[in-house]
Amino acid sequence: MKARVFVTLKPGVLDPQGKAIHHALEGLGFGGVTDVRAGKLIELELADGTSDDEIADMCRKLLANTVIENFKIEKLENAPRLSSAQA
Amino acid sequence: MKARVFVTLKPGVLDPQGKAIHHALEGLGFGGVTDVRAGKLIELELADGTSDDEIADMCRKLLANTVIENFKIEKLENAPRLSSAQA
Repeated sequence: MKARVFVTLKPGVLDPQGKAIHHALEGLGFGGVTDVRAGKLIELELADGTSDDEIADMCRKLLANTVIENFKIEKLENAPRLSSAQA
Repeated sequence: MKARVFVTLKPGVLDPQGKAIHHALEGLGFGGVTDVRAGKLIELELADGTSDDEIADMCRKLLANTVIENFKIEKLENAPRLSSAQA
C-alpha cells in the first residue's frame, strides 16, 4: 500500500525557500506568480492495512515539525507513484 | 488560482534522504515501512488563466531538474491550500 504525506509550512510562518523560488520565477520572466510556498512530499510504501493513525503518528514523531508545519496524508491503494508519472 | 507542483525523483535515482527517513522510521519502531521516497511540493498562487503549458515551463526551467526528477501539476481553482489543511 502506498501513502503520500504532504508537509507544508503553517500560514504565517516565513518561507525563505518559497520567496527565493518566487524571485527566481520573476527573474525568468514568469510575471503572473503572486505567491510561492515550498513544502515536502514523502511517498511511503507500507504494509497493507497500516492505519491512518499510524501514519499520522509517523508524521508527528518524525516527518513533520508540528510547531511550524501542517501535514496531510493521502492513502493510495492502487494508484501509481508520482515518480513514475510524467517525463 | 492555485496550482501545486509535485517534484519526485525518477525511479532508479538514488534517494539518500528517503533512505534516511526510512531508517529513522524503523528506529522509531515503525516496522511496516518497505520504502520511502522524498520529494518536493511547491504551491503556487497564480494569475487566473495561467495555462498548464506555462506552469510546465516553470517546472522545466526552474522547479524540477528533469534529468533526475519528474514533475506533476495539479491546478486548483477553489481548493484550500494544504498549509491551512490540518493541525
